[in-house]
This record gives sequence, structure tokens and C-alpha cells, in this order.
Amino acid sequence: MMKLGKKDILGIRDMSIAEINLILETAESFLEISTREIKKVPTLRGKSVINLFYEASTRTRTSFEIAGKRLSADTINISASTSSVVKGETLIDTARNLEAMNPDIIVIRHSAAGAPHLLASLLRQSIINAGDGAHEHPSQALLDMMTIKEKKGKIAGLKVALIGDILHSRVARSNIYGLTKMGAQVVVAGPATMMPRDINQMGVRAYTKLEDAIADADVVMMLRIQLERQKQNIFPSLREYAQHYCLNRTNIKLAKPDAIVMHPGPMNRGVEISPDIADDPGCSVILDQVNNGVAVRMALFYLLSGGNE
Amino acid sequence: MMKLGKKDILGIRDMSIAEINLILETAESFLEISTREIKKVPTLRGKSVINLFYEASTRTRTSFEIAGKRLSADTINISASTSSVVKGETLIDTARNLEAMNPDIIVIRHSAAGAPHLLASLLRQSIINAGDGAHEHPSQALLDMMTIKEKKGKIAGLKVALIGDILHSRVARSNIYGLTKMGAQVVVAGPATMMPRDINQMGVRAYTKLEDAIADADVVMMLRIQLERQKQNIFPSLREYAQHYCLNRTNIKLAKPDAIVMHPGPMNRGVEISPDIADDPGCSVILDQVNNGVAVRMALFYLLSGGNE
Amino acid sequence: MMKLGKKDILGIRDMSIAEINLILETAESFLEISTREIKKVPTLRGKSVINLFYEASTRTRTSFEIAGKRLSADTINISASTSSVVKGETLIDTARNLEAMNPDIIVIRHSAAGAPHLLASLLRQSIINAGDGAHEHPSQALLDMMTIKEKKGKIAGLKVALIGDILHSRVARSNIYGLTKMGAQVVVAGPATMMPRDINQMGVRAYTKLEDAIADADVVMMLRIQLERQKQNIFPSLREYAQHYCLNRTNIKLAKPDAIVMHPGPMNRGVEISPDIADDPGCSVILDQVNNGVAVRMALFYLLSGGNE
Repeated sequence: MMKLGKKDILGIRDMSIAEINLILETAESFLEISTREIKKVPTLRGKSVINLFYEASTRTRTSFEIAGKRLSADTINISASTSSVVKGETLIDTARNLEAMNPDIIVIRHSAAGAPHLLASLLRQSIINAGDGAHEHPSQALLDMMTIKEKKGKIAGLKVALIGDILHSRVARSNIYGLTKMGAQVVVAGPATMMPRDINQMGVRAYTKLEDAIADADVVMMLRIQLERQKQNIFPSLREYAQHYCLNRTNIKLAKPDAIVMHPGPMNRGVEISPDIADDPGCSVILDQVNNGVAVRMALFYLLSGGNE
Repeated sequence: MMKLGKKDILGIRDMSIAEINLILETAESFLEISTREIKKVPTLRGKSVINLFYEASTRTRTSFEIAGKRLSADTINISASTSSVVKGETLIDTARNLEAMNPDIIVIRHSAAGAPHLLASLLRQSIINAGDGAHEHPSQALLDMMTIKEKKGKIAGLKVALIGDILHSRVARSNIYGLTKMGAQVVVAGPATMMPRDINQMGVRAYTKLEDAIADADVVMMLRIQLERQKQNIFPSLREYAQHYCLNRTNIKLAKPDAIVMHPGPMNRGVEISPDIADDPGCSVILDQVNNGVAVRMALFYLLSGGNE
Repeated sequence: MMKLGKKDILGIRDMSIAEINLILETAESFLEISTREIKKVPTLRGKSVINLFYEASTRTRTSFEIAGKRLSADTINISASTSSVVKGETLIDTARNLEAMNPDIIVIRHSAAGAPHLLASLLRQSIINAGDGAHEHPSQALLDMMTIKEKKGKIAGLKVALIGDILHSRVARSNIYGLTKMGAQVVVAGPATMMPRDINQMGVRAYTKLEDAIADADVVMMLRIQLERQKQNIFPSLREYAQHYCLNRTNIKLAKPDAIVMHPGPMNRGVEISPDIADDPGCSVILDQVNNGVAVRMALFYLLSGGNE
């Protein structure tokens, strides 16, 4: 069996197709553990995972914590609000200190793009990027690809539309890297103020109208609108945003009849997605994404620990 | 042996006498584990318990966490202050996300009455209400009943006086449901502004004077006065409240000579209870309540997991 | 083998030389566990450790948590920000409540000097002082002594210089007690406003100039300057402080050529220590301190649990 030739999981951009496939296949094999009566295997007993979160999070931190515990790893949570961050220590010093306590894996979320890469270059431990600024969020893209593959049987050849604030979204960026790499046709739509300037160099087609992007799409991935951006005058009002970019019963008809709808959460219902679409078991796979997230993170822990050596 | 015919523990109101007895007896049998050298049994290995606390708590969250760990369950804490609550996600979406991660039990504390019921109706997991607004706090009432039974040998036929802010107290409400169901005579006392309008329909006798309520009582249960209520002009001053409703050496003489004194904590010493009463080993069973709390929560986890099937 | 004749670890002042040696030797034997593939021993399975932190902390809380988990203890974290501290409960009541839940060890950090001693006198559990105000921080001094012994082969006879805010530093106080007890010659330097009045009764020589203190030192221990003190007009500016008390390439030449440099962290780089010194593997042992910290805390848990009986 193949072995993951990486110390760290920093982004999808620097991941090969073979590596993505290895992770997805490993994750698929782990899915079953979470359905058992005894949801625990001893694989990572005696290993410790530190969740170092400089930004608030429920789902991602919990997902990593549950993934660790299902593999019998010890999990230690550090959140910025209660840490020596408030005492002005540098990120590097905090990381070096954690390294000296000999954990095996450090999962980091940080508002600064590149923070996980800095740690990865300095520390001997495996680093997993759980979101760095507007840069990458690789475990999210992996669980998204796993969900697409699960529902559609493949990724290559599908048309995937990403809608919303492409510019500030690490989820969008990681998915664009991954999906284009895996052979999907990726299109994006969003207000001009939320579109990266180099979007055309990323191998995707960009539109300003949602309708143009989702036409004939196999997958529609809605992005969370970050409400705090409104103060920066990037968009005039939630109502106006929703008027143009909310996925609803009407515009979803433009996508393929069997299109699936995804969202990384947390959702702003009525803003980027209408409640009836979010809750429609016929198209929404949002909770499958969450379920697959635990399996993907188990796979990352397992592979980074040299699991299949 | 009997089996708990419930998916969830939402309140005492909808619990049968047989169910209460089953929980209390199971809890009594678990008491001994916490006195062992090795305070751990493998009963719930591979099960996971999420403590989802939307209100600050030390004792209740810690009690549930210790209960889970003593049964070898994995415990995951989520507190609102570090969660995506700040990102404006709805409670239902948060809950659906947690469900998709396949925990076994979700313990929830929320300021909104009915929040646990909503979750229970939507999720396949067992939900335990750890306090919902001014509505119910069933594990507290169960540990209170367990303590009364332990100290008095029975519940039926006892006179139990609840003193303080009956209106805003989920502890009072759950205890009134439970104690009347178990055959105790329940009386309450508190300022008129802190008394529910429908108090007489609850099967209890209400007084405005503490002295009238505790006369000949077997059990005196003092309620925490919520200091933030003072701003709402529900009572004029702490000093005046204490003058009328503080349990002390003088007024406790009105109760039976062998009366026990209870308090759910945290105590405002000198407000609702005088320090010498709180610390008197001759009558105060306040720390027995805490000790029994761990056993009650172990019993709930065990029974909800189909322990004695 | 010797047995630790103590219920609690409150400070170095009341510790005998034999006790310090026992702890250091036990810690040395535990160092190896953290280098294993499976970093876990079953020694404290079924024991529970509560980390009760009334002050923010990353490294100390994480170090205690990892130490507990490596010994298979259950660890429960309570931080003041999410606890019933906000509800106005007294420390004693909080502690009594925790006691009633039957943990085995309570680790406490509190801004009030003497808080751990109060708990130790009241509770049957073992209490470990993880820092109480400006009083003591015994596990820090123990890991410092362990590091000195590791690097220098001994403590007795060495000249150790402590530089900075001696007055407000629990690290300095615990180290002064320990190092003088173990036969080192301790000297201190810092601004007059940061020097305890009774410094000469502590068995150390005090200077106001850094250069006078580090002359011929075997060990130079830099203390963290607490930036919040500046508002109290204890020192005029960080720049001026750094000008006189920052350890750098020039003044370190006054120490012995093989002198080691220590810092309890978190560091203010460029204030009390220049970055090139902090990161110089030839003299800095700062990360060895962190590594030894886990081993010292494992030793404390082990010995307090009667490990070698």
C-alpha cells in the first residue's frame, strides 16, 4: 500500500493526485468506525494531538478532537483566549514550547496565512493546517472531495460551481486547487469585490452572476458570507447580497436535476442559502460533509503517524 | 431488571415514578466506584459524550465530564464563548452538525427553555437537559432526591420546604415535579415577585414568609438568589432579601430537629444561607449533593446507553 | 526507595533537600517515556487530575495536562473565564465542591498568594501549586533545578544569577529557596523598585547592575518582565529596561564561557533577552526546561499518588 510522503498537511496546492486519492481512500475505510457500537480503535494509543486554535471554532475543532479520540490518541485543546497569546508571546515561541513537550501532531488554525507553514518548517512534529487566514483549509477541501466522490462516484469531469466570497475564502481556495487537480471543471461566481484578481490563473472560469455559474452544474458549493465584511463596504447589505447570490428553489433549477448542494458551515440561512434548499434531503449533502470530516481527519492523523508502514 | 424506556432526559415532569426509582437505584450502585482506588469502569468505552454548554458552569459541566470519564466514555466540551455561536449559527444547525459526528449523548445547557427538547426531537442521539432557562434541571432534582433518600431513608411523607426565587429557578421546578410525584409534601416560600402565578396548580403550598414554610420541615432546600435579578427591581436589596429569607441558626429551629439543609450551589453566603448553617455537618448535606451528582450522571449515561439491557 | 512524605506540593520553601532530590530523580527516570513511540504508561489509570486555572496559561496548563495523560490519568480543565467564579462563589466553596467529586489531585493557579495552601489545609486531595500570586511556583523551580543538574552535573557550588523583576516573580522566589537549599550561590540583579526589601535575608546577594550579577555565573536565569507593571510606574519604559537588563552577546561574556541561559517563558524578546541569545543552542537551555517540565509534573503526580510505595 502507498505511504503518504509528507510530514505535514499544509494545503491542497502542494498535494499530488496520488496523495489526495490515498487520503480519500483511507478516509472511506475509516467511515465505518463511527458507525460501530464501540467507536474506537487503538491505532494511535500513546500519541498526542494538540489542537491549537487561534480563531473560534466549533465544528472543526470538535471534528479533529473526535477524530483523535476515535483513534485513541490523547487530545489537548489550546484556544487563544485562554493562552499566553495574551501575554504577547510570538507564535514561534509558543510552537517551540509545544514541540518541547513532545506531542505527535499539532493542528493549527490561525488568522495569518502561512502560520502553519512556518510551524511546519521549524518543528519536527506533523502540522495540520485547520485554516490559515484566507489561504487554505485542506481538511475541508478533502472532506468536500470525499463527499462529491461518495455522491457522484467520481470527481473528474464534473462541473462544480463555487458561489460567494471567493476572495476571502480559504475553503474556496483549497477546493479550487483540489477539484481542478482531480479533473473537475470549476466555475465560480460572486460580487466583483469578492473575486480574486488572479482568478483566471487558477484554472477556473469566473462569473459575476450566480445563474451563469450554476448552469448545468453537478455540484453547487455555497460559501459562507462573513458578516463582519459588511463593515468594510465590500457589499452594501445582506438583503442585496441575498437577492443576487442566495441559492433557492428557483435558481437551483438551472443546475443539473441531480445536482448536489454543499456548504462548509456555519450557514447564514436566508443569506447565501435558502432554508428549504439547505434542508432538502434530495440535494443537500451538507451533513454528509460533516460526517465525512471526522473520517478525513482520522485518515490524516493515521497517515501522518506512518499508519500504513 | 427494568430498562429506561427513554431516549432523552429532558425533565422530571414527564418522568414516571418507576423511572425515577430506576435512576436513583442505579446511581446508588455507582456511588461506590468513586470511592475506589481505580475510579474507572469500562462500561462506556468507545462512546462519546458532548457537553454543549451555552451558559457558564463549573460544577455541572465538571460533574458530567467526570461521570463520563469514570465510565470510560470520551468527553468533548463545547462552550459557547469559543464556539461558532459567535458566528450566528442557529442552535439547530449546530446540533445537526454535532449529530453528524456521531456522538452517543449530548448534554446541553441553554438559556432558552425548551432548547433540549428541540434537539431531542430532531437528533437521533440521547439528549440530557443540564438546565434550560427557568424551566427544568432534571439531573439536579435527581441528585437532590437521591440525597434526601440517602439521609432520610425515603421521600414519601416528608415535608420539603423550598425557599427563594421559585419563579426563575429550574432547580425548584424540577424538584417540585419530582418530590410531589414521589409522595413528599412540598411547600415553598419567597417574595411575591418571585412566585409563579400558577404555583397552586403545581401541587404545593406557597407562603411569603420563610418561617411558615420551614415549620416542621424534614428538608429545607435553599435556592440561589440570582444577583443579576436585582437590576430588574424584583427585590429591593440583598440586605432586605437576607433579612427575610436567609436560613440561619434562629429560624432553622422551626424545622424538625433532624431536618437536613440543601443548596444546589453556587451559594451566596450570608444572602440565602448563613455560613454557619452551610458548614454545619449536623444538618448541611450540600456536599453530599455534589458527590451524589456524579453518581446520578453516571447512571443517566449508563441507562441511556442501554446499560442494563 | 524513599517515599515523598507530603500530601501537597505548595512551595519549595518547605521542601527538604531529600524531597527535592527524590522528585528530580523520579523526573529523570520519566524523561524517557516522552521519547517512546507509545508515550503512555498505565501508572495512574483511574485517577483524575483537575487543572483549576484562575489565570490564563498555555505552557503550564498544557504541561500538567500532558503529564497527566502520559500517566493515563483522566484530566479535567477548569478555567476561571468559563466557571462559576463569575457567579461570585468563594474559592473555598468551589474547592469543596470539586473535592466532593472525588478527584485525586487538584492543580491550582491563582492570583492570590496562599490560595493553594488554603485548599491544601481544607481538602483531602493532593494540591499542587501551579503559581500563586508573587509567592511560589514550585514545579517551575523543580524543572529549573532538573535542567541545571542535567547540564552541569550538579547544583551545589554553582553560581546562579537571576535577573529582572525579583519582587513580583514567583519563579524567582521558588528558585531562590531551592537553589540556596541545594548549595548553589545565588545572586540577583534588577531595578531597585523590583527588589524585595528582605532580599538579604533570603541568602542571596543583590545587585542593581546586571553585569555585577552575571560575572562568572554558571547559570543565568532571565525573568519575564510583566508588561502590565509598566502602568504602575515601576519602570520608566521598556526601552530603558532593556538597555540595562537585557541579556545580550556583549554582557553574557561576563559569565563563565560555558554558562547556560534559562528563561521560564513566555519571553519578551528584545526586552529581557536578545533573540540571538534565546536561540543560541550553545548556551540557551530554554526548551530543555519545557521538556523537563513534563517529566517533573509526571514525577509529582506519581509521587503524590504514592507511586513508589
